[in-house]
Amino acid sequence: MAKSRPSKRANSKRGSKAATAKARVAVAPARAKTSAAVNQQPLQLKVALLGYGTVGRSVARILSQNSGGPLRLTHIYNRNVARKKNDSLPASIHWTERIEDVLGSDADVVVELIGGLDPAGDFVRRALNAGKSVVTANKLLISECGPELVDLARSKGRRIEFGASVAGGIPAIIGIQEGLAGDNLYRIAGILNGTCNYILTRMEAIGASFQSALKEAQELGFAEADPSSDVDGIDARAKLVILTQAGLGLRVRAEQIVARPITTIASVDFMYARDLDCTIRQISLAERIVSAAAPRRAKLAGAVQPALIPSDSLMAHAQGSQNIVTAFGEYSGRTVFSGFGAGGDPTAVAVVSDLYAIARSAGATPGALPKSAKVPDEISGDFTVPHYLRFVVKDRPGIVAALATILAKYGISIDALLQKPGFPHSALSFVMTLESCDSAELNRALAEITRLDFHVEPPLCLPIFSE
Amino acid sequence: MAKSRPSKRANSKRGSKAATAKARVAVAPARAKTSAAVNQQPLQLKVALLGYGTVGRSVARILSQNSGGPLRLTHIYNRNVARKKNDSLPASIHWTERIEDVLGSDADVVVELIGGLDPAGDFVRRALNAGKSVVTANKLLISECGPELVDLARSKGRRIEFGASVAGGIPAIIGIQEGLAGDNLYRIAGILNGTCNYILTRMEAIGASFQSALKEAQELGFAEADPSSDVDGIDARAKLVILTQAGLGLRVRAEQIVARPITTIASVDFMYARDLDCTIRQISLAERIVSAAAPRRAKLAGAVQPALIPSDSLMAHAQGSQNIVTAFGEYSGRTVFSGFGAGGDPTAVAVVSDLYAIARSAGATPGALPKSAKVPDEISGDFTVPHYLRFVVKDRPGIVAALATILAKYGISIDALLQKPGFPHSALSFVMTLESCDSAELNRALAEITRLDFHVEPPLCLPIFSE
Repeated sequence: MAKSRPSKRANSKRGSKAATAKARVAVAPARAKTSAAVNQQPLQLKVALLGYGTVGRSVARILSQNSGGPLRLTHIYNRNVARKKNDSLPASIHWTERIEDVLGSDADVVVELIGGLDPAGDFVRRALNAGKSVVTANKLLISECGPELVDLARSKGRRIEFGASVAGGIPAIIGIQEGLAGDNLYRIAGILNGTCNYILTRMEAIGASFQSALKEAQELGFAEADPSSDVDGIDARAKLVILTQAGLGLRVRAEQIVARPITTIASVDFMYARDLDCTIRQISLAERIVSAAAPRRAKLAGAVQPALIPSDSLMAHAQGSQNIVTAFGEYSGRTVFSGFGAGGDPTAVAVVSDLYAIARSAGATPGALPKSAKVPDEISGDFTVPHYLRFVVKDRPGIVAALATILAKYGISIDALLQKPGFPHSALSFVMTLESCDSAELNRALAEITRLDFHVEPPLCLPIFSE
Repeated sequence: MAKSRPSKRANSKRGSKAATAKARVAVAPARAKTSAAVNQQPLQLKVALLGYGTVGRSVARILSQNSGGPLRLTHIYNRNVARKKNDSLPASIHWTERIEDVLGSDADVVVELIGGLDPAGDFVRRALNAGKSVVTANKLLISECGPELVDLARSKGRRIEFGASVAGGIPAIIGIQEGLAGDNLYRIAGILNGTCNYILTRMEAIGASFQSALKEAQELGFAEADPSSDVDGIDARAKLVILTQAGLGLRVRAEQIVARPITTIASVDFMYARDLDCTIRQISLAERIVSAAAPRRAKLAGAVQPALIPSDSLMAHAQGSQNIVTAFGEYSGRTVFSGFGAGGDPTAVAVVSDLYAIARSAGATPGALPKSAKVPDEISGDFTVPHYLRFVVKDRPGIVAALATILAKYGISIDALLQKPGFPHSALSFVMTLESCDSAELNRALAEITRLDFHVEPPLCLPIFSE
């Protein structure tokens, strides 16, 4: 707010931060945890880094700048390590391309920043088995194997922390799992993929097509050459799986959650959305459903999909590559966490914060994924909400009547009809909004509607989420 | 979002929550902490409640609903306890109006919800000295005595947690202190008082005067009969002191921070603010200032005051009694925490979450207020930002010239002049916005301006904060 942001290199800040960190953390390293007295002695935790990419470099820089603190970087593992070696880091760091050098070392914690399931999962298991704690930013690994790895860590008296696996620098997991531990959370909703959010906010801001917004994101490094994991919702889904376990105590597999791509969104959808005082975002939503008929059944509704949200909502406020996570609790209402969910530096903050947590905890039982989170009895991707249907048709009389007839057959009420001027009759784009209805029922109606012969492209159906 | 919010009493939720809590927390109660093996056994932490008001009742209800979990409510202390006794709670609870019954009991943790410095401070010290950990929602006590109490807890091998002392249900302290531990934070800004936010958002929404908005807040229970601690900024200031220590590692006393009342805000200020695409909120702001001339001096700029903020900012989004806390870090950028900062249930969530943290930690060193946080070398309430000046004058020619002459003398540039039609000449209200200037310099100019003879009421000066 004020214009006195301190410079990144200000000595006084680093000096006092180091002092703070030292004071805050009276470390008992993992191997000394059986002694109760030891946690009064400020010792250093030895940290080994697996993977020296963008996040790894940020982690190494932060650790080196706080070198008087409770964390000391001792090893960096990477393929072709000679090419990566960085002279600005302390000469004492052991650079290696042999994982055995790390696993057989005296490092207390291994930071896994390789990504993907293989070999990262193997390395993490071997590190835990070697008696090291683990910090990882690997959403895929945690969404697939989180509970198993937490169990393994516990059995070895070690910890695995993964705060960086969801929403980068935003402390969403600790906020939900520890800060809101006293509540019964029933819904987690968020914008969990910065690439999609960048693309959609650009489409909104400049009327770009999906393809040109994607191209721009790729040129700026916000999207990868193969963007499918992001735009198809696979990346966000892995994060939603982790948050569902952390917040709702429900253990699901990624493939059980519906993921719908944002590739179907056209610039015209933002025009219609604006007329509805809405915008479009990739929304990840998981909700525990309690039915009066079977109150003991744990039913989860979860999906990652593009959706309309009010323009003045907090979610719509997340611009560019920002992320937002909202948690809804029986007692605390809605709590929001937002900030920069990706990028080297924010993700590194989450990694280093997890390292501090391990240093602070003196080997106590991890507060991580609840070991015996319940497997839901039922999982669906259906929500009972208003919907947005966009049609592109070869115009002729009777189209609305045909659509309305089918919708009425399924008990679905039309709320409004919107049509912008200027479309050719051969590809007329118009929108119908529907009153709240079950999306499963709507999908049955849409299957019938899609068989009608006037469509130029398949109808687009988006849920409309209010706050 | 979807309309399937589960009912508060759903059995299945409570059932699975209890299971989750049990699984998550393999408790080693504080007194057993020297044994490393014990933290695999799910034991219960005995909890004593001091104070059975709104928050206390919520805490008791949450603990009773999760009675199979790691926390068991064993004692409730309150004056006139017979009048308070509640038959819906377990009969095993010991109700008492003698504090000695609690301090001499086998309770592991004392929850202090009495508020104020005395006798709450005495009770907390005695509880720690008796070997109990403490959870408190007492912002006054923590802002005054936090470091001393943390030291006392450490010396006894116990913990004191105070997540509920700032922003109620929002996990801001854990988020900032642990979730962002890996960053160097340099600024904390927030809306920390729900009463002021309620009053200001009502003034904004319906054009109410301060007095009528205050009266409405009092009737609805959002403001106390004596609202001075809220509207004068005293309450928010205590919270800012706690966040300054937690986030910036700087230890200050409340009276060192400027607090300006919101009582000076009139409905006309919201009209002018709207013309500037702004609104008005009570903003608490603390910032570490690094000057190039003396990089090792720790300078803090901090204030609680009404300020203009952009209408489309996240802060402006906080409606009614909501709170918001934003942290700015060298690496993570801006991270936002928002939600319900007050009320019995949200505050109780923070209290119970702190209890879970103590249960989980198995007596490890607390991650609370850093013991040796630095005392700043310099503290000021000045920020270099644009400003809003509102005058009410007896109109005559030459007023603007007189004001502009004085401002120019101090090197302060006028940005814009706004005047709504319809004011009488005897009490003409108009607004001047100033380009970014140091508020200390501006205050010197204002002292001179205030001596001019055309004022009907003293000029109002507000900073304009951008995001």
